[in-house]
Amino acid sequence: MQHLLMIPGPTNVPARIMNAMSRPIINHRGPEFYELYDSILKGLKYAFQTENDVFALTASGTGGVECAIANIVTRGDRIIVPVNGEFSLRVKTNVERLGGVPIEIPVKWGEAPTAGMIEEALEKEKDVKGLFVVSNETSSGAAIKDLEDMGKISEKHDLIFFVDAISNLGGDPLLVDKWKVDVCVTCSQKCLACPPGLSPISISDNSWKKIEKNGSQSFYFDLPKYKSYLQRKETPNTPCIPLYYALDEGLRMLNEEGLENRIIRHEKCANAFYTALEAIGLELFARKQYRSNTVIAFKNPRGVDAGAMRRMMIEKYGVEIAAGMGAVRETTSRIGSMGIVSAKEVEETVNALEKSLSSLGFKFESGSGVAAARHSLK
Amino acid sequence: MQHLLMIPGPTNVPARIMNAMSRPIINHRGPEFYELYDSILKGLKYAFQTENDVFALTASGTGGVECAIANIVTRGDRIIVPVNGEFSLRVKTNVERLGGVPIEIPVKWGEAPTAGMIEEALEKEKDVKGLFVVSNETSSGAAIKDLEDMGKISEKHDLIFFVDAISNLGGDPLLVDKWKVDVCVTCSQKCLACPPGLSPISISDNSWKKIEKNGSQSFYFDLPKYKSYLQRKETPNTPCIPLYYALDEGLRMLNEEGLENRIIRHEKCANAFYTALEAIGLELFARKQYRSNTVIAFKNPRGVDAGAMRRMMIEKYGVEIAAGMGAVRETTSRIGSMGIVSAKEVEETVNALEKSLSSLGFKFESGSGVAAARHSLK
Repeated sequence: MQHLLMIPGPTNVPARIMNAMSRPIINHRGPEFYELYDSILKGLKYAFQTENDVFALTASGTGGVECAIANIVTRGDRIIVPVNGEFSLRVKTNVERLGGVPIEIPVKWGEAPTAGMIEEALEKEKDVKGLFVVSNETSSGAAIKDLEDMGKISEKHDLIFFVDAISNLGGDPLLVDKWKVDVCVTCSQKCLACPPGLSPISISDNSWKKIEKNGSQSFYFDLPKYKSYLQRKETPNTPCIPLYYALDEGLRMLNEEGLENRIIRHEKCANAFYTALEAIGLELFARKQYRSNTVIAFKNPRGVDAGAMRRMMIEKYGVEIAAGMGAVRETTSRIGSMGIVSAKEVEETVNALEKSLSSLGFKFESGSGVAAARHSLK
Repeated sequence: MQHLLMIPGPTNVPARIMNAMSRPIINHRGPEFYELYDSILKGLKYAFQTENDVFALTASGTGGVECAIANIVTRGDRIIVPVNGEFSLRVKTNVERLGGVPIEIPVKWGEAPTAGMIEEALEKEKDVKGLFVVSNETSSGAAIKDLEDMGKISEKHDLIFFVDAISNLGGDPLLVDKWKVDVCVTCSQKCLACPPGLSPISISDNSWKKIEKNGSQSFYFDLPKYKSYLQRKETPNTPCIPLYYALDEGLRMLNEEGLENRIIRHEKCANAFYTALEAIGLELFARKQYRSNTVIAFKNPRGVDAGAMRRMMIEKYGVEIAAGMGAVRETTSRIGSMGIVSAKEVEETVNALEKSLSSLGFKFESGSGVAAARHSLK
């Protein structure tokens, strides 16, 4: 049975995109591929809202993040990295492993870094080369609301501004060019509603200058090589053809819906979830001003075995949500509200959650969650 | 129209494998995935003929090679790398980029390194840590025939023996355990007949000791992390689920056919190609004793525009073969004879080649290639 996948990626993939994967396997050094690649690149530029060079790496999102860091960072580079969850912690580790020196700004989980924090750090620190942030912490459901200001600060201080937008590109406003984002990474299986396997990336002219001077630390993720192959509309290595078809179809669907509409839909669904969970009496994990549009994190209800709750949701109601991650693995649960999510999926999820909580003895007014979600979605 | 893909990967993918990709997208942190992963790992152990740990990386083959090198090599490590084509040259570059010191053994393109060459190098060189070879040079159609002896030499000298078997695992004998191969890498889109997107890898106990001591240089390709996730049957990063389904199906087909039968089939088809090309009067590129079972390289016929020949094969006969690569890009062409290749594909390809050569004025006895292929395939 196909579950309703309400985890923070992979998400439910529409039939149109699934079917696209059955198209014939083609030579990645031939005219059919050139046409496909061209169409993907156009679609990605729209998704990123950029005129910068874009690529679709054959790797999961973590690979895309490594690509960004392996191309920007050279040994000894000092990089500001706010850490407010598992994925920003990984960015920090990745910077270290590639010889960089992360300047950590510790932020409470459930909160997000602000432009003020970055300015404060820059007053104390010298010779900073980059600002690397995770725009939406998939582990805690907290999103940065100050990206545009951070872009301004980065420009002023001549920093490379890298945004890991793995779990919210397409679900939150992120205007790469207008907000001066130098390098932006996302992945196929979140708001773009495709299967996992690709990591799209955008590179500004400003970052090309630094990247081409230093060269890539990685052979597989060699961006200057990607750029040189761009002229003949090829990728340096054999791309994952079925996922390229899927991404192309997913980007066409994004274009048909309109980016702005998709963001509004994500916002509406997330708000419905937040309202419903509060109506049930669950405590949300992220602080109100940082709440994510795509990942809804809540504290596990007291007196209820959260593992049993999630298992019951799957086994009895066919709805799959996720456990917490890292430091809050045991104390939180997460709902992914992404991709093709709509009122239907929100209501089914809230209903499954209510029914399972009731069975496990959690006290609340039955039906209050679904009613609140419905009201919010009106 | 679906071409007959006779390039050195991606190759023709059977409907069974294409269809497998439409199975539901599942949570990669749940029981359905555990079952899928388990089945893939069993299939890979059979394909590699190993009891070693195996993984399926979400990356193309170049990513798998980088993974091997980023985990084995630490700064200053001296590694013997025979170079006889484009892909062994890339291994050398990759070793350098990750801080290793390659000791190159230059070998003529169209030939392959021998055990004797390795022994000779070891007599001159001190403090060698590894021997890295490409078992089948996709760029030139030359394969190493001495892998077993190289394994013995590596064991004797306590070297990590890494074999890039991207384009011949499943098409040539390669007994990872028996031949003492420490790290072996292949990819989904060659002899395993799947779409591109995954790179399987095997790691010996001997290499684990060294890898775990030094740690991985790459965050995305962190093998100790892959190992630690193996206990719960998960991958550290979100895997490409549709390709996992495809690989699982491809490995089931390999198991049904039997590895030995598949190798014999590849050998028969390759021999038929070699016989046919010689009958037509074309000159083979690789020297006889090194000829590949999977990539048939030949010199472009004198007086014929090879690009026009390949284009006519596609446009008029629906058969796609490849240009040469690197140093022999302009002077050779290559046929990929891999995956589900059988007498039918060989005859169609030779027929398309004959017809195109005739149209372009190349002189030979018409039909002699197809007849020779048929005779050889009997």
